[in-house]
Amino acid sequence: MKNTQLLYEKLLEKAKEIKVLKSICTLIDWDQETYMPPKGLKIRSTQKEHLEALIHKEFTSTQFQELLGALINLETGKIFDESGLDETQKAALIEWRVDLLKSKKLPDEFVKKFARATSEAVSEWGVAKNNNDFNAFIPHLKKIINLTKEKAEYLGYKDHPYNALLEDYERGMNVKKLDKLFNGLKPFLIDLTKKLSQKTVNDTFLYGEFSPEKLFEFDYEILKHMGFEEGTYRLDASNHPFCLSLSPDDVRMTTVVKTSDIFAANISSVIHEAGHGLYEQGLDKEQFATPIGEFLTMGIHESQSKLWECFLGQSLSFWEYFYPKLQKQFPSHFSHVSLNTFYQAINQVRPSMIRIYADEVTYCLHVILRYEMEKGILEGSIEVEQIPDVWNKKMHEYLAITPKTHKEGCLQDIHWAWGLFGYFPTYALGNLYAAQMFNQLISLFPDWKERVSQGHLTFIKDWLHENIHRHGRRYSTEELMKRATGEVLNEEYFKKYLMEKYSI
Amino acid sequence: MKNTQLLYEKLLEKAKEIKVLKSICTLIDWDQETYMPPKGLKIRSTQKEHLEALIHKEFTSTQFQELLGALINLETGKIFDESGLDETQKAALIEWRVDLLKSKKLPDEFVKKFARATSEAVSEWGVAKNNNDFNAFIPHLKKIINLTKEKAEYLGYKDHPYNALLEDYERGMNVKKLDKLFNGLKPFLIDLTKKLSQKTVNDTFLYGEFSPEKLFEFDYEILKHMGFEEGTYRLDASNHPFCLSLSPDDVRMTTVVKTSDIFAANISSVIHEAGHGLYEQGLDKEQFATPIGEFLTMGIHESQSKLWECFLGQSLSFWEYFYPKLQKQFPSHFSHVSLNTFYQAINQVRPSMIRIYADEVTYCLHVILRYEMEKGILEGSIEVEQIPDVWNKKMHEYLAITPKTHKEGCLQDIHWAWGLFGYFPTYALGNLYAAQMFNQLISLFPDWKERVSQGHLTFIKDWLHENIHRHGRRYSTEELMKRATGEVLNEEYFKKYLMEKYSI
Repeated sequence: MKNTQLLYEKLLEKAKEIKVLKSICTLIDWDQETYMPPKGLKIRSTQKEHLEALIHKEFTSTQFQELLGALINLETGKIFDESGLDETQKAALIEWRVDLLKSKKLPDEFVKKFARATSEAVSEWGVAKNNNDFNAFIPHLKKIINLTKEKAEYLGYKDHPYNALLEDYERGMNVKKLDKLFNGLKPFLIDLTKKLSQKTVNDTFLYGEFSPEKLFEFDYEILKHMGFEEGTYRLDASNHPFCLSLSPDDVRMTTVVKTSDIFAANISSVIHEAGHGLYEQGLDKEQFATPIGEFLTMGIHESQSKLWECFLGQSLSFWEYFYPKLQKQFPSHFSHVSLNTFYQAINQVRPSMIRIYADEVTYCLHVILRYEMEKGILEGSIEVEQIPDVWNKKMHEYLAITPKTHKEGCLQDIHWAWGLFGYFPTYALGNLYAAQMFNQLISLFPDWKERVSQGHLTFIKDWLHENIHRHGRRYSTEELMKRATGEVLNEEYFKKYLMEKYSI
Repeated sequence: MKNTQLLYEKLLEKAKEIKVLKSICTLIDWDQETYMPPKGLKIRSTQKEHLEALIHKEFTSTQFQELLGALINLETGKIFDESGLDETQKAALIEWRVDLLKSKKLPDEFVKKFARATSEAVSEWGVAKNNNDFNAFIPHLKKIINLTKEKAEYLGYKDHPYNALLEDYERGMNVKKLDKLFNGLKPFLIDLTKKLSQKTVNDTFLYGEFSPEKLFEFDYEILKHMGFEEGTYRLDASNHPFCLSLSPDDVRMTTVVKTSDIFAANISSVIHEAGHGLYEQGLDKEQFATPIGEFLTMGIHESQSKLWECFLGQSLSFWEYFYPKLQKQFPSHFSHVSLNTFYQAINQVRPSMIRIYADEVTYCLHVILRYEMEKGILEGSIEVEQIPDVWNKKMHEYLAITPKTHKEGCLQDIHWAWGLFGYFPTYALGNLYAAQMFNQLISLFPDWKERVSQGHLTFIKDWLHENIHRHGRRYSTEELMKRATGEVLNEEYFKKYLMEKYSI
């Protein structure tokens, strides 16, 4: 028994070394997007490449494999001394093995080739987008698609190559389940969009000149109410909002402050990133260097940001508390605008070209469009040359609008250039998970509106911590959802939420 | 021949990997002092320890030693294929060997013991200083002194154990040379201080409330004039000013902005750190990963900061240009104060207890005091228990003042707690090198006052780049000084500068 614990300690020590390198990599990313002088980029790329190579080398080293292999059979997954380890340790071993097997599936040569191709494609995508020139992007996209197909073969899959990619970002998800979820959603959303988009709403007051200092003050006010622990987080300005975590004690979020669009670009993005941030802070600190101290899937991560951003941050109760504060912060912009007008403005449903600016009704349709296209591209039923046409047709079918340019059409997202096929679905899944969690939360706290309208938000953070955050990768998403909400993912909760909110 | 170049390339590649790790370490330090959330410190220490261990491991690895040893005989220092390498490459090999031999002198166990002792001492020093309790610090100081003696033995020396420490921070310097320099300086400075400190000067306008934003604006104005390249540097706020360089393209300086003391705490410190920063920016980018792309000694580094801070930043010509800008930036503070009054205020000579706030006349006396004490402590002629008495006696003798507390006496500096015996002299050497360089500079540019008073400063940066910066570690300090100024270090130039400036 004792020997097993000693072995586990040794493995953990090595894992801590690797985790520390990863957290340094995170700092480098954060710095690059916030304070790095532009010309610092030259050495920055080398720093990153070198660190990432080092992390990969350490994780796949003979030493790490021997340490892990002494506790769990790397081939069969059988733990040698079941009774000598506690449940968390056993769960960690199982997950470490999963990660190790995965990291060995892609040959080093392939990883490098993929990295080179995407690095090239990203810069060419930028040019093509600016020039509205899809043809210029075609050769790069073709290269990436071929490499992605190769990647799927390396990773392995059942039934559909897309399953290999889904498994990568949203473990346990597959085309069959996703088709069922999205098919249950699509006609409902198309129909709802049609009904709601008739209404015209005044939202001019959301645009204008806002002092960055005053914006930051307001943002921090929200963060404090959401329950961030003093001295463990910060918010900075960057070109695109994001959230990175060096450790649960050092979570860094960013937002856009030089903007004329106060809600979407700043406030809403802060609440979104803060949802991610609370997940990172809520991970089990004791399990910092084990997989149990890591977030579960991209979809679950997105559920945390979406739950705060939309289900709370676009609720009337939330703004009953925060709107007077916003008015006080920016009297010339908001003193003459009623809470109800503000609420209508931040909740207007209007089909639009750009996914990242979409409202909560149309957003999932953007994602479904990309999912269907990616699946078709991988199957070979959509040729690269057909992408603009198929895209525009689907946009018309789902949202009744047609992009005038590729820039606001199929060239709008960077994901394909990054080689992130299979990633988009997690954005929609985030909404669906969030709806189901939110449904559970409000049934447990029937007085939620009262609490929230008084600025009390920590009961939400606490419930999420107890039921989602602290578990990390201990359970599968299905198991986690069953434990937290009583059943596996069901898109009906999202539909129910929208129907109630928009009083259908 | 070709083979030698291939070998050199391989060595360089390995050196680049190590350099990249070092630059990451620098980023970690910068972040810790600027933006890190306080509780992020927990993982930060682990990150640093781990990276430093990795750097040490890589540099002393068999691989690196074999690569270097294939080009230069590690025992004799003889380069195998002289004609197959250019002068820079040969210089780099010689310096790499010096670093390698040095890094192998201290056993790993000793380095760890030293690090633990100083880490403990630093926190105890803080408490002892706050409580004005020298006795509480005695056991820690004794420990550090014993370890420092041990360190000197490991490093090896001729004549005096202090030489081992000097060699560590200021290669080529020794007690004999330093005694000569300081003995030539001490009576002169004591005498000059007496003469000048009679004068009373009004400087109240330097203290007050200054907007951090406006301060930063003014600071950046100075930095731009000093010739920093756009996109390669930044200035942030921190508790203590410092300058760190990730690469010549990413230099980061800090200053204190929340202060009531605009000159010493902010403006003067910015010019000082900018002097360091220009040195780092001026290092040969092509030699980034070799010792030739590194700064020469601490004293030479300090000469760059001092030259800008005192010789230019406290000159009348400098303020003829910048004072109207300062007045415009802070009209309520300065509009009623004449340039001459301002100039007198920033150049007053007044014996004071705290080294870091000392004027340019008394500053070196503070350093000489510490040098004499360190030498005595290491020889055993000063017992730790005697430190406060000896300190106070010397303060009285040199500056005619006596500390009322240990806090403003022998506990004021963190250096001994950090284990930095042998470091202080470089602060004074910086002044002496700077005076000699400045003397050369103004004899080459007889119209310097006119240029500077018109805001033209880049001719100074260019001369320093040409004669100091770009050479890195190519020459010894003696050789560098001879090439730049025609002779080795001579304290007479500093005396001459002070005599002329203070019109003796």
